[in-house]
Amino acid sequence: MDPEAVAKAFVDHYYRTFDGNRAALGGLYHDASMLTFEGDKIQGAVAIVAKLTSLPFQQCAHAISTVDFQPSGPAGGMLVFVSGSLQLAGESHTLKFSQMFHLMPTPQGSFYVLNDIFRLNYA
Amino acid sequence: MDPEAVAKAFVDHYYRTFDGNRAALGGLYHDASMLTFEGDKIQGAVAIVAKLTSLPFQQCAHAISTVDFQPSGPAGGMLVFVSGSLQLAGESHTLKFSQMFHLMPTPQGSFYVLNDIFRLNYA
Repeated sequence: MDPEAVAKAFVDHYYRTFDGNRAALGGLYHDASMLTFEGDKIQGAVAIVAKLTSLPFQQCAHAISTVDFQPSGPAGGMLVFVSGSLQLAGESHTLKFSQMFHLMPTPQGSFYVLNDIFRLNYA
Repeated sequence: MDPEAVAKAFVDHYYRTFDGNRAALGGLYHDASMLTFEGDKIQGAVAIVAKLTSLPFQQCAHAISTVDFQPSGPAGGMLVFVSGSLQLAGESHTLKFSQMFHLMPTPQGSFYVLNDIFRLNYA
């Protein structure tokens, strides 16, 4: 599978899952995975899902503006850099964000998220 | 040196060099380094410096808002995620940006930039 297709499939899957069933994101993270969310540092799939499911909004919809990707070195990983906007239920304006993921290959030929850094773009 | 100190020293050095003597950024990249700048893909220190020195502005000043960092895996690399704003000479408003770097260790105990992705945050 070519890298661009992997990056786009991952981004599509990630944000569709986030918007539809946030708890299911746990399957994308491992124990070694790290999330930095607006400066808060969280490690491990269980803690990351607890963080994502406890954010102070229930329903949201992500719209993706750009997806950039690069191979991350000899271990076969891939960096994915996303910009987009986040619409919260009941809010009229959207929040712009930037987020990066470091995807690492699994023995099964899939990928998991080793690194995840999220920041809102303050105007 | 602790990771936070490395990340902050790198960010300080990178943007000070960018604003003061952009051509000197070449020393931070290797032949395998990749830059994705507003979607343009460039590989190798020479081509990356050619890109950065040919941007359509001469003088600029970066102001950094946030610096996040995570170890990137067993190879000893570090991911650094930066948000900030860019003031161009003669322009009254600033441009917000997000940028990520993947730093890899050198045998000399320093770091080089393997991956670099830059995006302006469009309002």
